[in-house]
Amino acid sequence: MQSKIYIVGMGPGREEMMTAEARRALDDADVIVGYTTYIRLIEDLYPEKERISTPMRQEISRCRLCFEQAALGKKTALVCSGDAGVYGLASLMYELGADYPDTELVVVPGVTAAVSGAALLGAPINHDFCAISLSDLLTPWEVIEKRLRAAAAGDFAIALYNPGSHKREDYLRRACDILLEYMEADRPCGCAENIGREHTRSFVCTLKELRDVSVNMFTTVFIGNSTSEIRNGKLITKRGYQL
Amino acid sequence: MQSKIYIVGMGPGREEMMTAEARRALDDADVIVGYTTYIRLIEDLYPEKERISTPMRQEISRCRLCFEQAALGKKTALVCSGDAGVYGLASLMYELGADYPDTELVVVPGVTAAVSGAALLGAPINHDFCAISLSDLLTPWEVIEKRLRAAAAGDFAIALYNPGSHKREDYLRRACDILLEYMEADRPCGCAENIGREHTRSFVCTLKELRDVSVNMFTTVFIGNSTSEIRNGKLITKRGYQL
Repeated sequence: MQSKIYIVGMGPGREEMMTAEARRALDDADVIVGYTTYIRLIEDLYPEKERISTPMRQEISRCRLCFEQAALGKKTALVCSGDAGVYGLASLMYELGADYPDTELVVVPGVTAAVSGAALLGAPINHDFCAISLSDLLTPWEVIEKRLRAAAAGDFAIALYNPGSHKREDYLRRACDILLEYMEADRPCGCAENIGREHTRSFVCTLKELRDVSVNMFTTVFIGNSTSEIRNGKLITKRGYQL
Repeated sequence: MQSKIYIVGMGPGREEMMTAEARRALDDADVIVGYTTYIRLIEDLYPEKERISTPMRQEISRCRLCFEQAALGKKTALVCSGDAGVYGLASLMYELGADYPDTELVVVPGVTAAVSGAALLGAPINHDFCAISLSDLLTPWEVIEKRLRAAAAGDFAIALYNPGSHKREDYLRRACDILLEYMEADRPCGCAENIGREHTRSFVCTLKELRDVSVNMFTTVFIGNSTSEIRNGKLITKRGYQL
């Protein structure tokens, strides 16, 4: 019999920011699999349901575990924060899926941090934009640097994922220094932190100030394009309407 | 008294793809304002509620209408398809908001087409990506071309919004020809159409084939990066896990 795994984007974390479709996939699941932090975010919603959490950097075994659970005949949901197809586990599931030809994969889209963070800050990515992760765990820094330069050359608004962690304290500063080769020091920027969770916070600053901002795994950073403005504390990237 | 306008991303269109938060903002509204097509998508949900639709290219008057409704003391919601902060009306509302200092704006994030289309196709933007609109109504074609070239130079996965319309029939072909200067002809690509609506369809193809695909306002186009693969009919952009 064919089994099916739902790969669910839960959005930033708060129940209200999940889609009805994502909620239903979790409602219907016999078992929910995910990274420890994300499983914790949903355990109040599903206290009676089987939940399996695996720690960070265990992505391959977490994905294999989903296929194993599905092979047992359980309706299986893999939860990712934000959207599973934006720095989430969707592609790894498809890669591993070659070993489990009887299992169908369904991605249930969610609100990714570029979008939820943008809503907090105003409208920072309201024109062409790039998403770039500063994490070099899986991507060589040279590739990250090349993309930062290309994003600047193309005058894209930019959303930076994974801007820093304990081990990568100076990565945001390094990224800002690259962008400062192309952009003015007072380019409007902003940060959104703990989106949809406790201690949500957002603030705007200049690119020069962003160099010295302390960020973590729960921060999403925004850099405006050449038309962006800070108005009333909000970061606005214009569409081009003639007012 | 301060009034408040909710700028609501309704996702692709289907009720189940809205967040609970978006749904509640519409539930609570006295009046819902939007582009004709989007108002039609929600009229079954809110048959009794006051709805005001304005046609395409009336964005400025549509936004002003929201401020006027709010000034009358009505709880006002402006609906956008996908997310209001990604090629939606969020930034225009903030720009016009300068004229209405007593009105607070709240953006309620939604699932944008890059994300919902990606879910249909597999995982095409599962690493650093760019969103680029091919519409030159508000953006000179030279800027669009510059961004296509920068996206290719940076080896980003790409999501193209507004890839074509009656008046812009050959725009996707022009974009492909630019990208073909940088990418191999068999670069994996894909299209998602009528996401979350009737006649949903998605398919993969090569960049060379994409040149001749007929697209419209309801198509989102995806171009893989140099690591992307087509597997089992799905377009997969890898994160870099060593399997």
